[in-house]
Amino acid sequence: MVSQLSQAALRDQRSQFHPFTAITDLMAEGPTVMESGSGIHVRDVDGREYIDGMAGLWCVNLGYGRREITEAIARQSERLSFFHTFNGMSSDVVAECAEALLQRAPVPMSRVFFGASGSDANETQLKLVWYYNNLRGKPEKKKIIARWNAYHGSGVATASLTGLPGMHTLFDLPKGPILHVSAPYYYRKAPEGMTERAFSQQLAQELEDLIEREGADTIAAFFAEAVMGAGGLIPPPEGYFEAICPILKKHDILLVADEVVSGFGRLGTYWGSQTYGYEPDLITSAKGVTSGYFPMSVCYISPKVWDVIESEAGKAGLFGHGYTYSAHPVGAAAALAALKLIDELKVVDNVADVGPYMLQALRDRLGQHAHVGDIRGKGLMLGIELVHDRGTKEALPMANRTGRQVLKAAANRGLITRALGDTLVFAPPLVITRADADAIVDRFGAAVEDVLPG
Amino acid sequence: MVSQLSQAALRDQRSQFHPFTAITDLMAEGPTVMESGSGIHVRDVDGREYIDGMAGLWCVNLGYGRREITEAIARQSERLSFFHTFNGMSSDVVAECAEALLQRAPVPMSRVFFGASGSDANETQLKLVWYYNNLRGKPEKKKIIARWNAYHGSGVATASLTGLPGMHTLFDLPKGPILHVSAPYYYRKAPEGMTERAFSQQLAQELEDLIEREGADTIAAFFAEAVMGAGGLIPPPEGYFEAICPILKKHDILLVADEVVSGFGRLGTYWGSQTYGYEPDLITSAKGVTSGYFPMSVCYISPKVWDVIESEAGKAGLFGHGYTYSAHPVGAAAALAALKLIDELKVVDNVADVGPYMLQALRDRLGQHAHVGDIRGKGLMLGIELVHDRGTKEALPMANRTGRQVLKAAANRGLITRALGDTLVFAPPLVITRADADAIVDRFGAAVEDVLPG
Ligand SMILES: Cc1ncc(COP(=O)(O)O)c(C=O)c1O
Ligand SMILES: Cc1ncc(COP(=O)(O)O)c(C=O)c1O
Repeated sequence: MVSQLSQAALRDQRSQFHPFTAITDLMAEGPTVMESGSGIHVRDVDGREYIDGMAGLWCVNLGYGRREITEAIARQSERLSFFHTFNGMSSDVVAECAEALLQRAPVPMSRVFFGASGSDANETQLKLVWYYNNLRGKPEKKKIIARWNAYHGSGVATASLTGLPGMHTLFDLPKGPILHVSAPYYYRKAPEGMTERAFSQQLAQELEDLIEREGADTIAAFFAEAVMGAGGLIPPPEGYFEAICPILKKHDILLVADEVVSGFGRLGTYWGSQTYGYEPDLITSAKGVTSGYFPMSVCYISPKVWDVIESEAGKAGLFGHGYTYSAHPVGAAAALAALKLIDELKVVDNVADVGPYMLQALRDRLGQHAHVGDIRGKGLMLGIELVHDRGTKEALPMANRTGRQVLKAAANRGLITRALGDTLVFAPPLVITRADADAIVDRFGAAVEDVLPG
Repeated sequence: MVSQLSQAALRDQRSQFHPFTAITDLMAEGPTVMESGSGIHVRDVDGREYIDGMAGLWCVNLGYGRREITEAIARQSERLSFFHTFNGMSSDVVAECAEALLQRAPVPMSRVFFGASGSDANETQLKLVWYYNNLRGKPEKKKIIARWNAYHGSGVATASLTGLPGMHTLFDLPKGPILHVSAPYYYRKAPEGMTERAFSQQLAQELEDLIEREGADTIAAFFAEAVMGAGGLIPPPEGYFEAICPILKKHDILLVADEVVSGFGRLGTYWGSQTYGYEPDLITSAKGVTSGYFPMSVCYISPKVWDVIESEAGKAGLFGHGYTYSAHPVGAAAALAALKLIDELKVVDNVADVGPYMLQALRDRLGQHAHVGDIRGKGLMLGIELVHDRGTKEALPMANRTGRQVLKAAANRGLITRALGDTLVFAPPLVITRADADAIVDRFGAAVEDVLPG
């Protein structure tokens, strides 16, 4: 196998320490090295072409090689290749971008704070939550509640918020005043026969109990994705946010909506919070804001939080937080181009149409397969959980790494998916057509059967 | 004042939450909004032109609008506008960049890990240090030593490493197993009459005492910038690293060299560690690697650390850490272009020439000024500390905000500097000529006299 690796693959293998990769696999098999991309397709250095069913990492929402974005990047890079916004500096394109972003918020928001990754944005949110409670004279109200199976980033604190034991154990995490409640994982965690609504009530009760136990005056915020992504593609059960949100409100706990994946249309509404009808106090976004063309994150700050920060600003002095690449002008230009395309191409409407269509197509194709336990999702965030036994939901033997086998079979058929254990995931570009969705489902169905006949 | 603000400034003021900015100043005065940049100059929306004496935020090392970099960005963005390196994926340009970076390491290094900011890279280093000690069976060896006045980033953990109380107090930091030792701040912290070498010995003794007290088997790593930047522009006293490093080695404590500012030539050698002659186990870099044109960070991993990680990889499984924008292909293209220019333009040699020239010019111009206490620095990282009284080193009254006044006077004279309290700082593009240095010193000298006559 290794003897067939391209020069680029060998170079990569001996030089790069890869994120979220098993080193033994990389050493045994070498990397897959991409060379170009256009629309929903990418091509590797060996000339193989793939439909990217994951839009990179749930981010290339407008597809690869969009002229409007690459040209905006090229133009801005020539015009002002960098500037910052420390010490009251800014740039024209950043000002325009900040305004355009505020106009697109799901609820009235006061300010945006820029960064370069979902992780840095959630680190910002954590620090803001503490800052806010210090400024308003609640220094004891600092604990954060997140959920098992959540993914909120890879910084020390954001990996602590993340509820994945594989990201904790060898790194001594979680660290800090972070508590985890159960994942809203209906397929795996709801007692046999319980309705989705009843399960939501149970989860709300668990949250309420935790708050009572810890004391509401010690709890600052609750972090939540709309649909859990990296933790297993888990949409909330019916009535979940409806049950959770009043509890947070009652106890004066901020809701931080992590919309890094769900923002900018992925669920078939502009924001995930609109799909499920809740009102965040802080929103974290990234990925789709530039369609992955340039690292950018955006924290939205609601009036509730901003008013405290602004009114206490004289006392607080310099706001001691920020990143060199906060508000990069080239990122702002990329974002402005992407925001315009999202509107012009009616991307959100497209997701509202193609998402349910693709979900149905997956169910039609694989719904009766003996090893398909669950097919779930919302908009263009879809997951297929493979099992040993549909009836008992018994998992496949871990050692088989079946998810990974299916991923490779799909790659052989020209399709990129992602394996979260034995849950295969799709988050394709939001501009796919129904025909593209059919092609993905075709290739995927065949790949599943390659590995798990009948 | 506010009535004169441009549309862009007003838009920014009401939309953006600025990093490292006093909100009251921003509200009272509005932002300065840049529009374009070329070479060492930037121009704001009101048509004022400035020499950027800070190269953005110590990062635009090759100056603004360099065609070789903007064209590399434009080309790569069209070719492959995004890809990632999770799950053993990569892209050709990333493989090439990883190899080019390793070739430029100051000591043999095994791998590079990519990110998008200095902060995310230091978060990575922290997690790696813990991971490494878990893998090699030293689960108790986890505390981290950093220094007062250090700047290592703005994540929860990296702001904790940072030794600036203004970044701690209202954010409930530091959090985690982090200890701070004294800053090597000779001008302010050395006892009257003590030599630099003796002060270095004293700091080494403090470190050794701390290690003894805590137990060497509980201490994992020591983080240090070569020259402290954001914490006050503080070069190490003579003999500092020479005294510190053997203590770390003796106690099996990793040296994490934060070269985010000092890497890629700023001190007149390719790496800061080469200026001061020490050998890091891990290197954090960012900024100069792309000259600020694209958010990118690079962690270098030495054989000592990598060999443990690789040999335990079977046991560890998936390496559960990474960022969406780790190894962005457009960043890699920007870095490759920047690395090539650093070589071709002999940037490092230029710094070795112009840096000392500019330091001398500052001393000639301001060395006798009644309110100039200290002029210090290395390469093109220079600082001028203003005081009330040169003889006693008594500080200027805080309420005067003299540093800020000088910064504004310099801006009025067409020069951007940075005020770290009353220490004014220069970190211009590394491509400045002696004549450019003269222009900076001229404008700056006049600005100091505008505020502090004679
Ligand atoms: C919901 C969510 N939050 C945060 C992040 C972290 O973003 P980044 O990888 O840009 O740091 C991710 C990344 O996948 C995510 O899915
Ligand atoms: C020495 C040092 N380390 C880390 C950082 C953090 O880098 P970033 O702002 O890209 O997160 C900086 C930023 O100025 C720095 O100067």
